Amino acid sequence: MSIATRSIARLASARSLSRRAIPFTSLRRAAPVVSIRHGSSLPPRSDKFAKPTQDHLTNLKSIASSTLSTLDGSATADELKSFNDDWMNKYHGKGPIVVKPKTTEEVSKVLKYCYDNDLAVVPQGGNTGLVGGSNPIHDEIILNLTNLNQIRSFDEVSGVLVADGGVILEAADHFLAEKGFIFPLDLGAKGSCHIGGNVATNAGGLRLLRYGSLHGTVLGLEVVLPDGTIWNGLSKLRKDNTGFDIKQLFIGSEGTIGIITAISILCPRRPSAMNVAVFSLDSYEAVQKVFAEAKGHLGEILSAFEFFDKQSYALVKKHQEENGGERKVFETEGDFYCLIETGGSNSEHDEAKLTGLLEHLMENEMVLDGVLAQDSTQFQSLWSLRELVPESAGKAGSVYKYDVSVPVGKMYGLVEKMRTKLREGGVLEGDGNKDGPIRAVAGYGHMGDGNLHINIVANKYSDEVEKIIEPYIYEIVSENEGSISAEHGLGVMKAPYIGYSKNDTSIELMRKIKTLFDPKGLLNPYKYII
Amino acid sequence: MSIATRSIARLASARSLSRRAIPFTSLRRAAPVVSIRHGSSLPPRSDKFAKPTQDHLTNLKSIASSTLSTLDGSATADELKSFNDDWMNKYHGKGPIVVKPKTTEEVSKVLKYCYDNDLAVVPQGGNTGLVGGSNPIHDEIILNLTNLNQIRSFDEVSGVLVADGGVILEAADHFLAEKGFIFPLDLGAKGSCHIGGNVATNAGGLRLLRYGSLHGTVLGLEVVLPDGTIWNGLSKLRKDNTGFDIKQLFIGSEGTIGIITAISILCPRRPSAMNVAVFSLDSYEAVQKVFAEAKGHLGEILSAFEFFDKQSYALVKKHQEENGGERKVFETEGDFYCLIETGGSNSEHDEAKLTGLLEHLMENEMVLDGVLAQDSTQFQSLWSLRELVPESAGKAGSVYKYDVSVPVGKMYGLVEKMRTKLREGGVLEGDGNKDGPIRAVAGYGHMGDGNLHINIVANKYSDEVEKIIEPYIYEIVSENEGSISAEHGLGVMKAPYIGYSKNDTSIELMRKIKTLFDPKGLLNPYKYII
Repeated sequence: MSIATRSIARLASARSLSRRAIPFTSLRRAAPVVSIRHGSSLPPRSDKFAKPTQDHLTNLKSIASSTLSTLDGSATADELKSFNDDWMNKYHGKGPIVVKPKTTEEVSKVLKYCYDNDLAVVPQGGNTGLVGGSNPIHDEIILNLTNLNQIRSFDEVSGVLVADGGVILEAADHFLAEKGFIFPLDLGAKGSCHIGGNVATNAGGLRLLRYGSLHGTVLGLEVVLPDGTIWNGLSKLRKDNTGFDIKQLFIGSEGTIGIITAISILCPRRPSAMNVAVFSLDSYEAVQKVFAEAKGHLGEILSAFEFFDKQSYALVKKHQEENGGERKVFETEGDFYCLIETGGSNSEHDEAKLTGLLEHLMENEMVLDGVLAQDSTQFQSLWSLRELVPESAGKAGSVYKYDVSVPVGKMYGLVEKMRTKLREGGVLEGDGNKDGPIRAVAGYGHMGDGNLHINIVANKYSDEVEKIIEPYIYEIVSENEGSISAEHGLGVMKAPYIGYSKNDTSIELMRKIKTLFDPKGLLNPYKYII
Repeated sequence: MSIATRSIARLASARSLSRRAIPFTSLRRAAPVVSIRHGSSLPPRSDKFAKPTQDHLTNLKSIASSTLSTLDGSATADELKSFNDDWMNKYHGKGPIVVKPKTTEEVSKVLKYCYDNDLAVVPQGGNTGLVGGSNPIHDEIILNLTNLNQIRSFDEVSGVLVADGGVILEAADHFLAEKGFIFPLDLGAKGSCHIGGNVATNAGGLRLLRYGSLHGTVLGLEVVLPDGTIWNGLSKLRKDNTGFDIKQLFIGSEGTIGIITAISILCPRRPSAMNVAVFSLDSYEAVQKVFAEAKGHLGEILSAFEFFDKQSYALVKKHQEENGGERKVFETEGDFYCLIETGGSNSEHDEAKLTGLLEHLMENEMVLDGVLAQDSTQFQSLWSLRELVPESAGKAGSVYKYDVSVPVGKMYGLVEKMRTKLREGGVLEGDGNKDGPIRAVAGYGHMGDGNLHINIVANKYSDEVEKIIEPYIYEIVSENEGSISAEHGLGVMKAPYIGYSKNDTSIELMRKIKTLFDPKGLLNPYKYII
């Protein structure tokens, strides 16, 4: 029996067993556990900022309904660690004061006080960023938005949600699900990240292919400017052509020119039918062909197209093994895998479209094997094959993580170039170099958005390895007119490398905009534009 | 036979006759012919700008490949009228020099020369705007982009089009159609307007419901700044999180901070199946209910939902009569009408969804009557019922045109308030006032976007009438937290009224941004932010 025939049969049998369990466990999305020192030196503390004192704390306590500080003994340094350290445990600030305002007015008063007293401030949402953008670098005041967490309004006719910046993404999505709507953004950190932080970092994630970027879906913002001025730009209108679209500047500004205290966002109806299928393939060219076919057959119901390579899949399998999960998913494994999700309003139509695609792929031997989820557990299980890649990499060693954007056709070439570079540098395990510190170079990402993640797994961090990777990786991205940060942002990690993605005129304009909004440079210093 | 039963029968018969002609002529989209004086006085000429001289012209001729001017006799004042007058023939500039550069470098040199010599400049695309934004107010240099009209590249994998700003919208869409893609914007002036001007004015139009705003679809811009600097922000990437999204400021900036010389835009696959249906209804509440049902039944394939009132329909019918077209469309006419368009990838599925909606609407007596297009001629004919409203109003008299955004539930209340106001002012025809100067108050628009157009048709323009309308109309929009310009922009017409839509903080930020980019205030003066 040829592969194609067997695979069709396999797909058909998967479809016919409505409760057939996918043979591996479904694991929750969780933060990757990695521990990396930062090779490049961090910017030194600037003397232009005042050092936080007991006096400052006393005044801030009189303004904000909740504070935590080592200065008055209301917290130990250990208790402040979760505010000072980043999610990757890579950057470690020493901010002695955490302020947790409950209202926009409190945020305004805190910022005005800091502005008048030259205190630097780091705005903090769920602190789930990957570039060290949301924790202090030195002793900045930590302004944490956790307590600003109310849904303000939802209009079931227009689908417009207005909510505080500190609302957790998953909470917002659950709220909307009950009303038959969906938040137009989804990402692994959804259980912790804040919607205000999502907007401040222009988060991309898993639904971008279908619903577009936040620049299109966010309708309005409420922002506290560095001097404490509250800017009410919280429009609920889909169309408003009365001047510069100022809110756009705050989307992706990473807390450098204002603090987002509320957002207004257009939420689509929740698809009533969703499907997911995963395929094994023999080449990256095959992945690209399947992507083109998926767009053609599925049209408006294609809601995600993700890919991952065999190194990524090996990491996930090992991680699942170690957690006692069964593993067998594909009868024929491949060098590449892709995941296709559909979301539509009519399950019968969607299944017909998807079946048409699957039959076409099998008949034309465009894939090696495929599995289609039959229920919501299998749906999540298949998604976890892709979503567990970062966590699995973190379990396997110390990870150098990169997040880049290049034209789809050139995406995987970057991974191959990186492997060659590491092999030439004599650090890649295998090929007669059994003890090389690099255990895996895994490539995966959001194919539909041209967004590639490269995870380089080492047995331990070393300057030697980092020097082989950087700035080489930024150079090859730049040669392909790509972006050195597709969705993670600049933060402190990538700020020094902005020149690989932006020209001098862009950087000069960014500096001018930063100065216009924040002439004292108090908001989120040492990051983004330096 | 009840209305519902008869209507279903009628729909069924329309569906069964695949070549049945809709009994009225399909008229081309064309510019409304109206002639209105401007009641409010225009801003006086500013002495800070140099007056264009023969010497300036000589220098500009040495820079740009094409110029026209009354100063050297290369054109008469009459020949410059199409550049000096706006599309509505409402504003009449006196610019003596038209420069038509062929390349971005030429645009750069022209702007540098004007910057160095304190010459004010009005950027001009197709000059089809409705608020006097693209023609000079006094003697500004007219920088017309017509000759900058090349497609630069198109990527059939990603759907990314890169093209000069002076490419005509319809030409861009035809180019894409041949490749199976669609420009994510459509509007009545497509045959004349430029894609650079579309982006500069953040045009909305007929496809916004489906494809979202230009803030989401535009990926990059090339812009010449007021001092002649070329900013290359022409990214082709769907995701790039490396700094402020500067291009967003130019989208909707109406030529006040830079001239868009090229755009990069994400174009979707062209839907292979399209349908359109038009209904008569008895109330605005019914229109809202049908809108909700359409969203539910049609989901992701709903591509437009437009509405118009019986006054709008009467104008169109009269216009069609005068052009010899037959008129009978509905067996039962109503106080309101709505148009539903679907666009999808599978005609069978789309028709099934649409039939499901139609049957539901008929069975529940939610509409009075309905017609479904059977071929492309009928498709265009049904669309023309909605698209001909502005032109028909223009033929019926002098038109006061307003374009506002308010929550969908409050949209039609604005039209009714306006009628009451005019009736109380004693200027509305009918109701015992047969000779009132106002012949019709027509309400129509993009229901899906909350965008209402109000056309007030007068026998002639008068200050008396304008004083009744303005600023009252802006007041009632402001009371409903709406926008006084949903898609037309500010230009010179609405600049004085910006305070009805934007608060003081927004206006102050706008002024700062304008000054940041254009410290001499040379670009498109007297407009937008004054």
